[in-house]
Amino acid sequence: MKVISTCGETHLYLKNEKYHGRTLGLVPTMGALHEGHCSLIRAAVRETEIPIVSIFVNPTQFGPDEDLDRYPRQEQGDLELCATEGVKVVFLPPADEIYPPGYRSFVEVESLGNKLCGKTRPTHFRGVTTIVNRLFHIVQPNKAYFGLKDRQQFVILRRMVKDLGWNIEMIGLPTVRESDGLALSSRNAYLTPEERKAAPLLFQALCEAKEAFECGETAPEQLRRNVISSIESDPLIKIDYVEVVEPVGLETPETVAQGDFIALAAFLGKTRLIDNLEMA
Amino acid sequence: MKVISTCGETHLYLKNEKYHGRTLGLVPTMGALHEGHCSLIRAAVRETEIPIVSIFVNPTQFGPDEDLDRYPRQEQGDLELCATEGVKVVFLPPADEIYPPGYRSFVEVESLGNKLCGKTRPTHFRGVTTIVNRLFHIVQPNKAYFGLKDRQQFVILRRMVKDLGWNIEMIGLPTVRESDGLALSSRNAYLTPEERKAAPLLFQALCEAKEAFECGETAPEQLRRNVISSIESDPLIKIDYVEVVEPVGLETPETVAQGDFIALAAFLGKTRLIDNLEMA
Repeated sequence: MKVISTCGETHLYLKNEKYHGRTLGLVPTMGALHEGHCSLIRAAVRETEIPIVSIFVNPTQFGPDEDLDRYPRQEQGDLELCATEGVKVVFLPPADEIYPPGYRSFVEVESLGNKLCGKTRPTHFRGVTTIVNRLFHIVQPNKAYFGLKDRQQFVILRRMVKDLGWNIEMIGLPTVRESDGLALSSRNAYLTPEERKAAPLLFQALCEAKEAFECGETAPEQLRRNVISSIESDPLIKIDYVEVVEPVGLETPETVAQGDFIALAAFLGKTRLIDNLEMA
Repeated sequence: MKVISTCGETHLYLKNEKYHGRTLGLVPTMGALHEGHCSLIRAAVRETEIPIVSIFVNPTQFGPDEDLDRYPRQEQGDLELCATEGVKVVFLPPADEIYPPGYRSFVEVESLGNKLCGKTRPTHFRGVTTIVNRLFHIVQPNKAYFGLKDRQQFVILRRMVKDLGWNIEMIGLPTVRESDGLALSSRNAYLTPEERKAAPLLFQALCEAKEAFECGETAPEQLRRNVISSIESDPLIKIDYVEVVEPVGLETPETVAQGDFIALAAFLGKTRLIDNLEMA
């Protein structure tokens, strides 16, 4: 496994691999790798000849009062995991390699980034689209892998790829969960034991709403209220938002249909967790 | 000469040319081609094996009250000119080929686009960076040619190319002028005979300031005032801005040095003209 820290070397090395006809699969991450990332890495290892993991805690997707400084970092463990899983290249750049002094260029997907998580994190998705576009330029992968826990992110990135004209297959993989249903997240490490005990309620509430949908409930506001009232039964959890949306424009549909999803964010103490569930 | 109207066909055709090792030169235009464009086209024909001209009146770079609808269009003449000059491919897409329904992705170069022309045209450069990034994805040229009459545009696009990581040589060529000094522009066609007679004063004022610089004047505000007082001598011209700036961040320097430039925009009736001159 090669570990490369510069854009230039990564680009050159991978360009050569591409030149020889090998397929490139990119898994963009912020490190602190867990089983959720592993499912993406395994798919990339299975489906492409050169599976690449990027590890970069991207400052432009954090707001000024967010957890950039304390975001969990475990470089050594991440590298070992990548090696074990069969990753061929880890791209591990320092911040000024991605954003050198004077950097000013951003990619924005209008309106999709202001909804759901964008209401609380107004510059977040602009940072995400900018870094992913940057990584796509450096790596130029054939396929890119993302977790559907961040479903809004996937919707936005898929739109960006289509709009800008990237020839990259975007692959979204199901959320990996703890046995009690809590979606894996690097931020779960922030939870106190009590908060951790409360956290699975988020997914339970989503599952109950999905059951209601399967039993015929198609009013988005009713499904939304179901989720809210389930979650509000626990005083440790403070809801940021619960929304029922369709998967292209992230608008609330008049009637909920298969493929629409319920997304939520909630605070447990200072920790903000997200989750979502597709109606199927 | 091939005339292609779809992104897909253009991309495929040019990809094949690139695969065979031929160099691609792109001249992005909004049509209404004049001698200024010709100097770019001739450079592309001289320096690259597959010179390509794109003709697209880009709606996203016009403000709501600007001249999108009446912007001069002369498709047949443009195609003849391209053929005469030895262009290999003209990319002439309809608007919904570039911006299909649902399109939402924009590229923005922060802060540089708010200065100079950006004060009067707040969304203009966002439209320019978005369309040029789009064209770069479609064409993937080795070299791209721009006129330095739009020097702020060139500064911004050069920054975008560097930041995003495009491997494209950006070439800025000198402003082509009428014999009386007026910079060629498709918008000169809007001028009444009287306005046309007054218009060369813009370049004269810049030349006088350059002479003052060459005689030792290095105070930006003094050079700026020289230009303003020259132009204000003609009541037909209303100044939008005159600024003395350095060529990277477009900031006003404390002391003017070689490479800095004076940029201006002015209205003659409803027609807004721009010009600039580098201190050398």
